[in-house]
Amino acid sequence: MLKVTISTIGKCKELWLSDALGEYERRLKSRVQIEWRLAKDDSQLCSWLQSESHLIGLDPKGELVTSEELCKKLGMKRTTKLHFVIGGAVGLPSPLKEKFTWLWSLSPLTFTHQMTRLILLEQLYRCWEIERGSQYHK
Amino acid sequence: MLKVTISTIGKCKELWLSDALGEYERRLKSRVQIEWRLAKDDSQLCSWLQSESHLIGLDPKGELVTSEELCKKLGMKRTTKLHFVIGGAVGLPSPLKEKFTWLWSLSPLTFTHQMTRLILLEQLYRCWEIERGSQYHK
Repeated sequence: MLKVTISTIGKCKELWLSDALGEYERRLKSRVQIEWRLAKDDSQLCSWLQSESHLIGLDPKGELVTSEELCKKLGMKRTTKLHFVIGGAVGLPSPLKEKFTWLWSLSPLTFTHQMTRLILLEQLYRCWEIERGSQYHK
Repeated sequence: MLKVTISTIGKCKELWLSDALGEYERRLKSRVQIEWRLAKDDSQLCSWLQSESHLIGLDPKGELVTSEELCKKLGMKRTTKLHFVIGGAVGLPSPLKEKFTWLWSLSPLTFTHQMTRLILLEQLYRCWEIERGSQYHK
């Protein structure tokens, strides 16, 4: 089973957002195990990630891709783990810079980092459905 | 007061999404009046929009902009109405093509058209906060 870790800052504040994240986690459950690591601030995030490598950073300065390109990049069916990092209000902490194998931008628009969590999960679900060839992604 | 009309296809299916949309409508309430027009299919959407003009279409082939560029483009404080159209699963209906003054793409990623509603409302709220110079958009 694929293990996806998502490291970010701050608890999930909104009830609707927990419900939405729960919905996509349920849909992915039989195929992908999601682990959330919610740091209290940048320095805790940095210390947690000190020994990690091969991270994918969600960053406004990252690369813009289509869902099909994302699917190819992640290769969810051929890998056993993926680790995404979402920065706080001011982006990804600079001490982590060298740990990222890829910087990915969801959009040139600015999203709340809370909403970024939801868009990330929906895209993971979409990638899986693209690989399955289902009707979800037409 | 600014009136924003959002025409799209299909009811809001998910409870979390109604809650999230409700949250942003509440935040905008004193400044922006949101009207949803939910058509049952493409042909109803086309007939509703027959006599309309100056529409903004949300379309994957549209222009990608930052939130600051969006804010300038919409000029929410200087206008009295804005009308957005979100297409269904296969995009915007082609008979409407000439009615759009601008085609806007949220991202090269594909989003559900339900989630597009939420991203649109959050961006409207963000634009308003950018114009106000508040701390919401840092």
